[in-house]
Amino acid sequence: MAVTYVDHMGSDLSVVNAARVSFARESRDLGPNDIGLINFLMRERHASPFEHATLTVLVDTPIGVQREWMRHRTQSFNEFSTRYAKIGEPEFYIPPEDALRTQVGKPGAYHFEALEAEKAPAAREKFESAYQAALDAYHELLDMGVARELARNVLPLGMHTRFYATANLRNWLNFLSLRTDSNALREIRDEAARVEALIEDLFPHTYSAWLQHERHAI
Amino acid sequence: MAVTYVDHMGSDLSVVNAARVSFARESRDLGPNDIGLINFLMRERHASPFEHATLTVLVDTPIGVQREWMRHRTQSFNEFSTRYAKIGEPEFYIPPEDALRTQVGKPGAYHFEALEAEKAPAAREKFESAYQAALDAYHELLDMGVARELARNVLPLGMHTRFYATANLRNWLNFLSLRTDSNALREIRDEAARVEALIEDLFPHTYSAWLQHERHAI
Amino acid sequence: MAVTYVDHMGSDLSVVNAARVSFARESRDLGPNDIGLINFLMRERHASPFEHATLTVLVDTPIGVQREWMRHRTQSFNEFSTRYAKIGEPEFYIPPEDALRTQVGKPGAYHFEALEAEKAPAAREKFESAYQAALDAYHELLDMGVARELARNVLPLGMHTRFYATANLRNWLNFLSLRTDSNALREIRDEAARVEALIEDLFPHTYSAWLQHERHAI
Amino acid sequence: MAVTYVDHMGSDLSVVNAARVSFARESRDLGPNDIGLINFLMRERHASPFEHATLTVLVDTPIGVQREWMRHRTQSFNEFSTRYAKIGEPEFYIPPEDALRTQVGKPGAYHFEALEAEKAPAAREKFESAYQAALDAYHELLDMGVARELARNVLPLGMHTRFYATANLRNWLNFLSLRTDSNALREIRDEAARVEALIEDLFPHTYSAWLQHERHAI
Repeated sequence: MAVTYVDHMGSDLSVVNAARVSFARESRDLGPNDIGLINFLMRERHASPFEHATLTVLVDTPIGVQREWMRHRTQSFNEFSTRYAKIGEPEFYIPPEDALRTQVGKPGAYHFEALEAEKAPAAREKFESAYQAALDAYHELLDMGVARELARNVLPLGMHTRFYATANLRNWLNFLSLRTDSNALREIRDEAARVEALIEDLFPHTYSAWLQHERHAI
Repeated sequence: MAVTYVDHMGSDLSVVNAARVSFARESRDLGPNDIGLINFLMRERHASPFEHATLTVLVDTPIGVQREWMRHRTQSFNEFSTRYAKIGEPEFYIPPEDALRTQVGKPGAYHFEALEAEKAPAAREKFESAYQAALDAYHELLDMGVARELARNVLPLGMHTRFYATANLRNWLNFLSLRTDSNALREIRDEAARVEALIEDLFPHTYSAWLQHERHAI
Repeated sequence: MAVTYVDHMGSDLSVVNAARVSFARESRDLGPNDIGLINFLMRERHASPFEHATLTVLVDTPIGVQREWMRHRTQSFNEFSTRYAKIGEPEFYIPPEDALRTQVGKPGAYHFEALEAEKAPAAREKFESAYQAALDAYHELLDMGVARELARNVLPLGMHTRFYATANLRNWLNFLSLRTDSNALREIRDEAARVEALIEDLFPHTYSAWLQHERHAI
Repeated sequence: MAVTYVDHMGSDLSVVNAARVSFARESRDLGPNDIGLINFLMRERHASPFEHATLTVLVDTPIGVQREWMRHRTQSFNEFSTRYAKIGEPEFYIPPEDALRTQVGKPGAYHFEALEAEKAPAAREKFESAYQAALDAYHELLDMGVARELARNVLPLGMHTRFYATANLRNWLNFLSLRTDSNALREIRDEAARVEALIEDLFPHTYSAWLQHERHAI
């Protein structure tokens, strides 16, 4: 799994100047008042100035995780197509030992614990053999002449896909609010953490203000 | 695969009255001038009046088809969760004989033909056995104690899911423009045809105007 | 100023059933568990089930207020057109005495107080004469042959306009969070209060859950 | 009236690489195949790759024109606030002689012609005096102690405002399709032409493909 930087527009100063247009002002360099303004905007949930900075990333993740990611309708996506392209040497998600978990408790009131250590190797082998069987069936269907767009139905949700994702800073912060939450799927939390590192690097004062205000959605 | 009516708001008259607010007018019943107005709006691509009517459907479809459907970011979705819920007796997509197809030609210039009839039974058995193997692996992982949200990775894209989809009339027409196109995946075309039948029934004059204007997006 | 009900789709039960599709369940009638589910969704900010119910209203308000309203990009709008239509007997916003206010304090730390009572009549006359002068200039420009779409430039922000607004229940709640806030413009707060009364009437359990969770945006 | 470049992200190559992720390919430099791909995307209305490039502009325009601009809900806006800020020396829109026009024909079948030359000076003076009277009334209301957010109701639609607008390349092209159309308001057409010049400069191959495909919305 990977989240790679592709491109971005703007900086903390873009946020400031989008807000200052309300007062017909403009800042050339980021000063203490500007940082105070970013905090004010975050506290008062004045979200629109955060929409004039953008970030594009390239994500490599299992289809099951991508399906959660794509629920964020304010993002723009382009994805690898199992309809158009040949699957070369696909990668599959075999949970590493520290991610292998079991669900404890009833629906609505459960938590996760590590799978007992002695069960991990067998579980990981089961993932691997299931993936291999699915890939074999896929190739057999292709060999029979079945179109790719049909044969792909036997491919598993654990197969990796790749996609571009573009959103503005406001929407990335909202994505992080939801997807770094402790209730989020662990695998998407790991990816969100990589987005978060990019946001911290590119927009440090916005990021700091967002932390101070409890990582809330705006 | 199924698309079932759940609820709707409005009628052709809603479109008309949303447009007539521009002139501070209102129609009580749909007359010939109103039908002419709907045609004018469609021809001139004045799309906003078509946003005040809505339709909700319940869709039952393979995950691979749902993934295309969910690219329509102007729709609202709620879907069956393989994270939260137990999979009871899942349905899998085994293409019926008349949908079993082969891809002929090069990328960018190919078309589909029916798979040779003698190959069809073997292909359909291959789908079935691959699905059964995946489902078995899923249950074995659950029996080992692996959490549902991890075990589901071995489930195939051909497994059915169910979701609510709500959109306004403008966005449904745009969905139909794209998804009933001859380049669209056959399986989503079949579902779009069911949405189209609902639109024709609920909004007959809008539907007729859309047909006259070449089913274009607005 | 007025907010009038036009149409709606759904009920509290629509919210419940959109959420229950996650578990492949459905409710026929709204029971105690369903009301608990609505509270759970609101508390956990699971917003998508609130998108399958919609409400359309017709709003009559000054252009200056409409300009704030239209910043809600998730709504659908159709408005009276000063480009296409003749302005008959336009209404203008002369603040009633109890809305006539003065700003006290510095930018960023001010509040409003009632204008001194003896100044109110003169202020209201000033509004009235300014509006009348603008309307006269508009008609003189039309009499000179100037096109409506140019002459309207002299019309004031206090002139009333009318528009249809359609949104789903999630977005209406977010609109209310922002526009019933004590920092919001008083005139839009009054209109939001009318929307709120409609929401309470149509979706009483959703409304009650939203109140319990501090009227936060979802 | 002015449209000024503020910032942008991406290039024609961004469009190409967002599309090529479908095939797990990437281009380092823009070659003839890439330009062919851009044409293919435009012809087939594969719009999503055009969403990974963005442009921010600063617009200075009359409020009446801004009201049309803000109907584009896929853009992000921040605007000068007549609620928060003092109006210094506002600019008002007095149509230049070559923009002074009269409407000829019936509603639905009219066109515009130049206002008779001898009437132009009087018309321009009428605009000027109406604007001055409105500004005077505004200041008199402020002098009486009326809050800015109320006094602004007497200000005219022809008063200039300033705003940031950010959108992705797909949405800018759709904006241009609608707002450079001969039916669009002349004043917004002039501004759209300035956006168009920026798009041509920053994304020349996308622009060229859009021209070839009749400037249609995607």
